[in-house]
Formats: sequence, structure tokens, C-alpha cells
Amino acid sequence: MDPLFHPRAIAIYGASSDPAKIGGRPLDFLKSSGYEGALYPINPKAATIQGLPAFATACAVPGVVDLAIVAVPAPAVLAALQDCAAHGVGAAVVLSSGFAEVGGVGAEWQRGITALARRTGMRVVGPNCMGVINVRRRILGTFTPSAAGFGLVPGRISLVSQSGAFGGYCLSMIRQRGLGLNLWITTGNQSDVDFADCVAHFAQDGDTDVIVGYIEAATDKVRLIAALELARSNGKRIVLMKVGSSDAGAQAAASHTASLAGSDQVYEGLFRQYGAYRARSIDELFDVAYACSLSAPRPAGRRLGLLTVSGGVGALMADVAAECGLDVAPMPEHAQRRLKEILPFCGPRNPVDMTAQLVNDLTLFEKNFQLMLEEGGYDLIVAFLSSVGQVLPLSSALLDQLQKVLARFPDRTVIVSMLASPEVRRLYEAAGVMLFDEPTRAVRAARALAYFAEEAQRARNRGAPPLLPAAALAPPRTVVNEVDAKTILASAGIPVVRELVAATEDAGARCAAEIGYPVVLKVASADIPHKSEIGGVIVGVRDETGLRAAFRTLLQRAGQHAPQARLDGVVVARMAGKGVETILGVVCDPVFGAVVMFGVGGIFVEAFKDVAFRIAPFGVDEARAMIAEVKGRILLTGLRGQPPADEEALAAAIAALSVYAAGHADALESIDINPFLVLPRGEGALALDALIVPRACE
Amino acid sequence: MDPLFHPRAIAIYGASSDPAKIGGRPLDFLKSSGYEGALYPINPKAATIQGLPAFATACAVPGVVDLAIVAVPAPAVLAALQDCAAHGVGAAVVLSSGFAEVGGVGAEWQRGITALARRTGMRVVGPNCMGVINVRRRILGTFTPSAAGFGLVPGRISLVSQSGAFGGYCLSMIRQRGLGLNLWITTGNQSDVDFADCVAHFAQDGDTDVIVGYIEAATDKVRLIAALELARSNGKRIVLMKVGSSDAGAQAAASHTASLAGSDQVYEGLFRQYGAYRARSIDELFDVAYACSLSAPRPAGRRLGLLTVSGGVGALMADVAAECGLDVAPMPEHAQRRLKEILPFCGPRNPVDMTAQLVNDLTLFEKNFQLMLEEGGYDLIVAFLSSVGQVLPLSSALLDQLQKVLARFPDRTVIVSMLASPEVRRLYEAAGVMLFDEPTRAVRAARALAYFAEEAQRARNRGAPPLLPAAALAPPRTVVNEVDAKTILASAGIPVVRELVAATEDAGARCAAEIGYPVVLKVASADIPHKSEIGGVIVGVRDETGLRAAFRTLLQRAGQHAPQARLDGVVVARMAGKGVETILGVVCDPVFGAVVMFGVGGIFVEAFKDVAFRIAPFGVDEARAMIAEVKGRILLTGLRGQPPADEEALAAAIAALSVYAAGHADALESIDINPFLVLPRGEGALALDALIVPRACE
Repeated sequence: MDPLFHPRAIAIYGASSDPAKIGGRPLDFLKSSGYEGALYPINPKAATIQGLPAFATACAVPGVVDLAIVAVPAPAVLAALQDCAAHGVGAAVVLSSGFAEVGGVGAEWQRGITALARRTGMRVVGPNCMGVINVRRRILGTFTPSAAGFGLVPGRISLVSQSGAFGGYCLSMIRQRGLGLNLWITTGNQSDVDFADCVAHFAQDGDTDVIVGYIEAATDKVRLIAALELARSNGKRIVLMKVGSSDAGAQAAASHTASLAGSDQVYEGLFRQYGAYRARSIDELFDVAYACSLSAPRPAGRRLGLLTVSGGVGALMADVAAECGLDVAPMPEHAQRRLKEILPFCGPRNPVDMTAQLVNDLTLFEKNFQLMLEEGGYDLIVAFLSSVGQVLPLSSALLDQLQKVLARFPDRTVIVSMLASPEVRRLYEAAGVMLFDEPTRAVRAARALAYFAEEAQRARNRGAPPLLPAAALAPPRTVVNEVDAKTILASAGIPVVRELVAATEDAGARCAAEIGYPVVLKVASADIPHKSEIGGVIVGVRDETGLRAAFRTLLQRAGQHAPQARLDGVVVARMAGKGVETILGVVCDPVFGAVVMFGVGGIFVEAFKDVAFRIAPFGVDEARAMIAEVKGRILLTGLRGQPPADEEALAAAIAALSVYAAGHADALESIDINPFLVLPRGEGALALDALIVPRACE
Repeated sequence: MDPLFHPRAIAIYGASSDPAKIGGRPLDFLKSSGYEGALYPINPKAATIQGLPAFATACAVPGVVDLAIVAVPAPAVLAALQDCAAHGVGAAVVLSSGFAEVGGVGAEWQRGITALARRTGMRVVGPNCMGVINVRRRILGTFTPSAAGFGLVPGRISLVSQSGAFGGYCLSMIRQRGLGLNLWITTGNQSDVDFADCVAHFAQDGDTDVIVGYIEAATDKVRLIAALELARSNGKRIVLMKVGSSDAGAQAAASHTASLAGSDQVYEGLFRQYGAYRARSIDELFDVAYACSLSAPRPAGRRLGLLTVSGGVGALMADVAAECGLDVAPMPEHAQRRLKEILPFCGPRNPVDMTAQLVNDLTLFEKNFQLMLEEGGYDLIVAFLSSVGQVLPLSSALLDQLQKVLARFPDRTVIVSMLASPEVRRLYEAAGVMLFDEPTRAVRAARALAYFAEEAQRARNRGAPPLLPAAALAPPRTVVNEVDAKTILASAGIPVVRELVAATEDAGARCAAEIGYPVVLKVASADIPHKSEIGGVIVGVRDETGLRAAFRTLLQRAGQHAPQARLDGVVVARMAGKGVETILGVVCDPVFGAVVMFGVGGIFVEAFKDVAFRIAPFGVDEARAMIAEVKGRILLTGLRGQPPADEEALAAAIAALSVYAAGHADALESIDINPFLVLPRGEGALALDALIVPRACE
């Protein structure tokens, strides 16, 4: 990818004398941007283009060409690329459209481009893309109007967007915000270079600290995951945007899990699994990128101190912090007393409120700030200073104090929220202190920084997936009844309820006697996946009389509501103790393979879509993270006098399921374990019902 | 309040020659702002202040004085106000601090101010406030540094803040955003003029369309509600900020409802009940205020059309729209075909994607826009135009098209999202078209506009609360058992389960025979409010043998787990059919009186805090709005083959409860009806358990 971003010379195919045209614009941009390499317009019809000598082909160029920008009509693109390859060009950016996005012969041309790239090793970006930018090298290999006049400052953010329009808008946003940019690329139809290639390149780039990405659809799970892991292990922070959440789960599906596993949910799981931060708006995308791009220390955790000149804004920040899971821990009592000695009317808890008194006594800032770091032990501080940033001498004095204190606590992160003049902003940012106009955005940025810190920590401590038991059975070839499904899952290390199948009433009575009353009776049939909807489950059967009555009732209901179903008999299962109902599931995604789902609370999983996904396989640490991620987790902690549930048994089962699913992804469509009952701590967990849908069903 | 905002002359007590001092700043501001009335510095120690003749007292001033700004030390304030009153001053703003906020003699002085205001009719703002501003009259009666240099443009927004620091920051934010402001006031300690007074004044002010408020704590329910209702009926839109949500429900409480009714939840209910929009960030506060301040038509509903030049941003907007409940309905099939004829590569559904092709063919905008309004019938359109706003001729041409189309559809609202130069922004806003840099913020603004439209509609159609039945019983004087509690609620028109209390096993058998098996047995005791925690409920009792066994078990458990409890016997209740469990509750708030709560789903209400509150009494329309507000409502609609629940019976019960609670607010602490079982549509609903906690318990 080096010739793409660091070319010594650039050839422009289809270079036009009209700087408003797609072929004219990159040349115009490059001529005026200050790019120091050679520029070669390629155009057989002119001797000079925009004042530069033009060449008929790249082969006619006297010197080396690292990068070609191709803006000829679609039918001529392949020939141009062949010419490039023949001249030893390292990389080409195809701006032209009319390829796979229009289908037909365009798709055929695009396959030709892919083949050429694979054959020659020349990297091709596009077609149908907006091009590339390297701000430090002043390379504008793009026709987006957003690059006109350059207007970019070098920085530590690199951006990759599958969409050209999105990339162009982001570029304008970056300029408007004055963010520092390093590399920018749009990948378009991804005939060769794709999103994962760009992330992997940025992951190894010394001038990049933050990777911003807009992803539409991944095509290669293995390379994407490798790129995300490389970025994380190289200490880069990744902020991604993925749109399309509103379509999730719209389609009907065979299992609960499948109906919840819109591709959006799978991406959400992927991002969390590999520590990427998912932004929900463009403001958030760049707020987080900005926060990560300054050379501030990385916080160790999520303990947040709030320092304010307004009690109201302090409370607002505390609300938002609590909502996004930051720990707004109070100052210790003795430190609160010291704060009160310094300023009797202050709010000493956390938020620490200096009140408007700060303006009369600037030293309050240093004193309070010092106390908060020393005694409060906060990983991060957000300081709200209202409009102080509009007065340079005041702001400058406060920055001095800030730096003095931070020198003593070099591992802490501080974010300042105030309305600031451009010169105050420059002053603070040059000192590595980030500024947000709006206090809730400062808190959300703090949350993102804590997220990255915790994800990095988690990645370091992450254990390997458990081993698949040697005795694990293969998935069935057709849908089997729930007892057989549970037998298979049990072989894979997932605990299941004790149960037997009885074909007759008498056999049922014997089974119940063996298992012990009370028992649950259920219709056993591969053809009735949702038994409760036909009344096919009777719980709390206490004795043989009850069992015989219930047995007859079930057979009657099955005959009435599902006359076509093949009955295997009646399941006699041990009545499980009190526990928390959860759901474990697997779907096999066309791109990501086996994906595991977890949720708490039966019908509420569907009502609230409160579920977590991960790409299989993974270990118990990742399973614990899934459990922590769902809101319903609170039900596992022991609400209203209930005992806390056995989360360790739950995590072990989720991890075991992921290993089984990954091992048999080719043979599976989906697995539903619903309910998976989590008993009180120390008592384990049990699959009460299960459905395995094999792949080759149709 | 008129002298406060439209004074012909202003006296400044404690006027200082130093424009940096609190007493010097308002005079300095007023001198340079362009205020046309007379200014009278009041200072017995100087002949002139800041070049103006000074007077020893207001009585010494030769002419009329409408407004006094008081910046003397706290001990001298009351005398200054007496002087004002003696001279017939209409209103006074007390900037000085050292009153109720410090307690002691300060609190006494403040009571003196209140008494003076009540006695003389002179309105007093503050003390301990930041003052008032009238932008059109160029009155800066404030010492906030945010007012320095004026820098304000007249507009249709008026702002009231209880907090001075918050108000000052908002003023800086208003200046930075270039929002048009009319009146601005901070109410501080509210010795006389309070938040409700200001809302009521704005509600009747011809130059105000949007009321922005920051409220900390209301003290007078009746006047606050009256002000909110007046504003709504006068067509003003109210955007409020209330902080402190993270403290909600932290304290232990006697009933479920009380534990959920943090004051924050009550305010949330109040705002929804009276159609105020609650902002969650300062950005949102001013985004919504801005959207409401332009002279755009008010949308009729929440049907949203999305027009875009980027498919990615279109999908992002659709995600956010779906998340906040807007209806992103697709274009009709035939209209999609017409869009495809206009531009074959467009996305025709909704979002309608014009692609970057717009830049080559500007007429696409008009054509698509016209089709969307004509055929899609959207109430609102959000159009994303990327960075087009940075090019004046392009932007201007698109605005012409927009206005041409809107002239044909004068009832539709359009919001444009693009990065715009200041001159393009002015051009669009002058034409009544609002601009947002960021597309998700444009969508959220659309959502706020739809909210106001629907709330106004709802207010017009809102029916009166039902009548309290003449036979309704008074609340008990002490906590009674659940059967007695249900008898009282039944008398108030709330349906309850059929049940009897039996003191002995034999009586229990007779009761069950009368009611009919299967039955539920429950310990009856006022001293055991949470029966299920001690195993005090046995369900599914099918016959007399079972009943006798269960009866004995219950007495034994009660004796074991609650030996001190007075037992009234055992409740024998009809086993209710299948339904959805909800919770209805009442708490009596010190400020707002009886407040009604509604939630769905037993333990999930507590896990997710997914509940709605309203101030009692109200009618079934408001009850329906409460039901629609909770996420758990989806469980009432009939998930996974369940029948839809009887929402009408539920709404009627909630309204009846509100009327009962309002009628007996003085005698009540709280009511819990949990579960309140909602049966399938047409079959009604039933209180299965109830707890009434009377006020005079302690």
C-alpha cells in the first residue's frame, strides 16, 4: 500500500484541461496543494494539460511512477491499468464509475480489474471511488469538492470510507472542525483494496493514532478481524460507523435467534469483540476521534471526576455519565471537608462545584483539581468552565495551573468543556488538552476513552476458547426433537435438564419415578418447535395421577393443534428449581460464520431486543463481557431478595456453545437454547429446551 | 412583569464607577448597548458614575423609574427595595447574593423581600440572580460576562433559567450559534418572581414563539401547570431542561411505586402531560429551540421523508428516525418508478438518494422533492446536501427550487442538513428554512417538531377525567390487608379479582367452592406487604385436597417467616386467566400531589425503570398516552401468538385510579396495584394484589 500513500510521482489518466471535470480536478488540486513529487498528465490528445507536459501512456513517462489516478471512461479503464502495470506503477486509484454498481458489462470489467491486480500485484483502489489523500505529503488524489483549496492540517487521524459521498462529507467536517488528518481513502467498489486492507495499513502507520472508518459490508471475515486485532495490538484506537440498524430483524426467520440477528447486531458484536468504538452520529464519530487524537494519557478506568462552575451543568454531566456507565464516585469525606475549607459554598461531593467564585479566585481551580486527583483517584476529569475560554488571559492562567497539576499526575486524563476563542483552543490543544463546547459531549468523549482503556485491558487478559470435548456429537442432519437436541448440546459441554422420553403413559410413569416428582411434561416432536403456543407444556406435575392426566391432555392437544406432526412421545423432565431464564443462540452468518447470541428474560428479549452477539469461537472472558453488556443482566444480580445467579456457569456454557458452533458452522443454520435457566450462584445452569436447525434443511 | 422587560427608565442601586464590578457592569452594558430609556445610577457617595449624574435614592430621581437593578451588599438590599417601592418602581432585579442560599440572617432578609413584594405589588427578581435581558429593547440588566459587547440578535426565543451560571452559559451559546433571542431571565432564589411567572409572561408575549427553560425545583404546582397550559394554548413551544435524573430512585421507599418515583420521573411525566419537550443536552436544547424559532409551518404528524445525496447518510438518518419513533414510510410503488425514470441509479424508496449526480443536474432536487411531497405525503422532509452549502450559487439555486415547491405545499416542513458558509446560512434562515450541519441532529429536530404537533393535537382532543363514583370509599387510616385494599379500589371503579378471606381451612374450602376451582391462596396480613418473598402465595390449587394442604402450608410459612405479623386468614382468589402483568401505582409528591405511575411486566419494571408518570387527575386519553410511552407496551400488543391485551380496560383503570388518588391525596402516601392483570381484548383487566399506604402512618 506504500505507493498509494507515499508516491514519488503520480500519473493522471484522463487528465483534463478543465479543472472542474473529474479528470481535471485531481491535477488541479495536486498542482496547487504543494505536492513535491512529479505529476504526469496522461492524455494522448494534448501536448500539455494545465500547463504540464502530457504523455500518451505511462510507459512514455521518462521517470518512475508510483501512483496512477485513473479518470478515463469505464470502457477504457482496464487498458489504462494494463499500461500502468506494464510501466511498473505500484498502485492505481480508479475514480471512474460504471462498473459492478451498474452490473452487466461493468461487472465484467470490474472482474478484469480484480484479475489484473491479483496477477500483477499492483494495488487498485476503486473503481467508483472518491480517491485518496495524504495530508503530510500534500497528496490530493481525489475529485471531491471537499478537498478544494486543501484547507487540511496534518494530524493523527486516518479515515477509510466505503462510501465516497460519506467520505467527502467527513472531509468537509474535518476541515470545519480543524481536526488534524493524516490519510484519507474511499474504497468504492473494492475490486482489490478493501476496507480491511486500509485498516491494516493504518494499523501499521506511524503517523496514525486514530482510525476512523465507515463500513457498509464486510466480505472477508478473517482479514477484517486480523486488521482490527492488529490495530488494537498496535495501540491504535478505532472509531467506526455502520449504518442500517433500523432494518435489523425485520425479516421473519426460523428461530428466535435468527429473527434477532440482523446483520447490524452482528457488526455490533464484532466491534465490541475487537474493541472498536461504534459511533451513532457523525458528531460522535469526530468527537471521539478528536479525543483520541490528542497526546493525552490513556485513562486506566472509568472513574470520572466532574469539576464545574455551575451546579446545574455539574448535575447534567453526572446524569449523562451515569447513563453511559461511568463511575461518578464521590470524593472521600475528609477531602470533602478540605474542599469546604477552601470554599465554604462549594459543592464538594462529585461534581465538585467551584461556583462562579472561580472568576474571583483563580487558584480555586488548581486547589480543587489537585485534591480531586490526589484524594478522589479519578482516572478522568471533565472540567466545565462555561465561557472562560473567551478570555485569553484567564484561560491561559488556568492552563498553567492545569499543567502544573497534571505534571504530578501524568497518568490522568483531563477534558475541558468551555466556549473558547480560536486562539484559546489552539493554546489548549497544543498542550494536549482537549476542548469541547458542550459539556455532555465532553462526558461522552470521556466514556469513549474509558471504553478503549477497558477494551485494551480486556484484550490483554483474554483467555483462549475452551476445547471442544472429544465426545461432542455432530449436529443432526434434520431437525430433531428437543431431547435429542439437548443430548447433542450436553455432549458439547452445555449443561441440560435431566429428562427422558416416554412413548406411553405407563412408560411416562416409570420415567417420572426414576427422575423424581415434581416433573414437567412436554410434547416431543421435531415438527412442533414452539410447543407452548399449542399448550404442549404442563408444569408442576406432582404425582402419578397428575402425570397420567397430563400425558393424555398433551397427546390430545397435539392431535388437535398439530395433526400432521410426527410425535416421538412425551418428554418427562425434572422440574427445575427457581432461576433466571436466559436465551442462548447461534446463527450462521454468510460473512461471519457462527455468531453466538445471549439475552436475559424470555419474551423480553424480543420486546426490547436486549441481546449481545459475538463471533464464535471465544472464551469465558468474552462470554462474561456479553453478559455484562445486556441491560437484563440486572436480573442475574439478585433483585428484590432473589439470590444472585450463577454467572460463571452461564459464561462457561456460552463459551462452550461458541466453540461447538464454530466447529460445526458449515452444518448449522441456527441453535436456540430457550430457556437456559441460570440457577443461584454455585448451583449451575440448565438448558430446559433446545432447537437445532441444521444447514442442509432445504 | 411589564416594567421588568419594557422599562422606560432604569435605576441602578450600588452603581459603581468600575465597570468590572457587579454594580458597575450593568450600567456599563446599558450605556453601550443602545438602550433608549433613561439610566439613573443610585449611589449616595458620588455625583456622577461612569459619566452619568448619580442620585442618593430613587426618590431623588426626577422622572419615572420602571425598573431597579439592585447590586448593593445584602444587608442594604431591603432598604433599597423599600426606596424603590416608595418611588413607585414597577420591578426590581436583585443581583446581590447572601440570602436564603447562605441561610441565617440572609434567609430572614429574603423573607423580608418576599413580604415587601407581596405588600407593594412591586415584582422582585432574585436575589442571587444574574438579571434580565430584553434584546429588542437592548436592555442588559445583568452582570454576566456573557453579555459583554452585546452580540445578540433579536429573535423569537425567550429563556428562563433558575440557575444564573446555567443562564450565563446559555447566553454565550446563543451568541456563538447566532440564535435570535427575545427575553432572558434568571430567577435565582425566587423570593417573588419564579419560573412559572416567567413562563406565563413568555406565554403571553407577542415576540416569543419558543420558551426555553432550565428548572431546578418547582414550588407551586398549580401556577406551573397553569403557565405550561397557557403557553401551549397560545401556541408557544416549550423546551425544558431538568437535571438530576441520575439520583432518581436511589432512596429506599415503602412501595414499588415510591422507589421508582424519583422527582425526576415526576417532572418527566409533567412535561409530557403538558406538551413540553425535555432536552437531554444543551446542544439538543438549542437545536430544538432553533428549529421552533424559524417561521416554518408546523408539521401535522410524524411521517418523515428523507432526501439525500449519500446513501450512507440516508441510512444513518433512517436509523436515527426509527430509533426516535418517526415514521420513515416508503414512497408508493408508482412514485418509485417515476423516481427511477428521472435517475436510474437513484434510491427511490425512502430515503430517496439523488446521489452525487445532483451536482451535475440541479433540477433533480426540485423533481424529487416535489414527488416526495406529492406522492409520499410526508409531513416533514429532511434533505441532506453534504457540503453544497459552501458554494453560494449552488445553494442559492437549490433554495429557489425549494421555495417553488414549498409554495405548492405550504403545510409541509423542510429541514436541510449541510455544511454551510455563514452567508448561505443567512440566506436559508431568512427564507424560513432551518439548517443543521449534522444530519442526525436534523432528524432529531424533526422529531421534536413532530412531538409538538402531536402534543398540540392531543391537547385539543383531550377528554375530562372520569367522575369519582359516589360510593367510593375513603382510604384506610392504617395499612389494611390486600382484600380490604382491593375492596376500596373496586369502589373507586378499578376492577379487581373475585376473592374471599377465610379464617379457617373449612371456611377456605367453602370459599373456594363458591368462587370455583382452580384458585390461588395467599396469606392475608397487612403486615406482610411482599407475600411472595416469604412463599406466601400458592397458585393453581385445583381441588379441596390441594386447598387444605396449601392452607396449612401458608399458615406454617407465615408463622415461620413473619411470626410477628397479625394474620387475617387466607385469601381465596379466583385463578385469573392468561394476561399481561402490569403495575399501577400512586405516590403523593410534596409539590405535585398525587402522581400516577404505570409500567408493564413485574420485575422488569424495576430492572429497566420503564415506567410512565402523570400528575393526577386525568382522563383516559392521558392514560392511553402513558401506555404508549413505555417500551413494555409491546407486550400488550400480542407478541408471539398471544392475543392483544385489553388496553381500553387498562386505560380506564389508570384514569379511575388517578381520579381516586387526586380526590384523596391528603390521606394517601402511596398505592401499589401489582400485578394489575390485563386480559385479552374485550375481557377486561383485574387487580390481583394491592397495597394502600395511608399518609398518617407515622
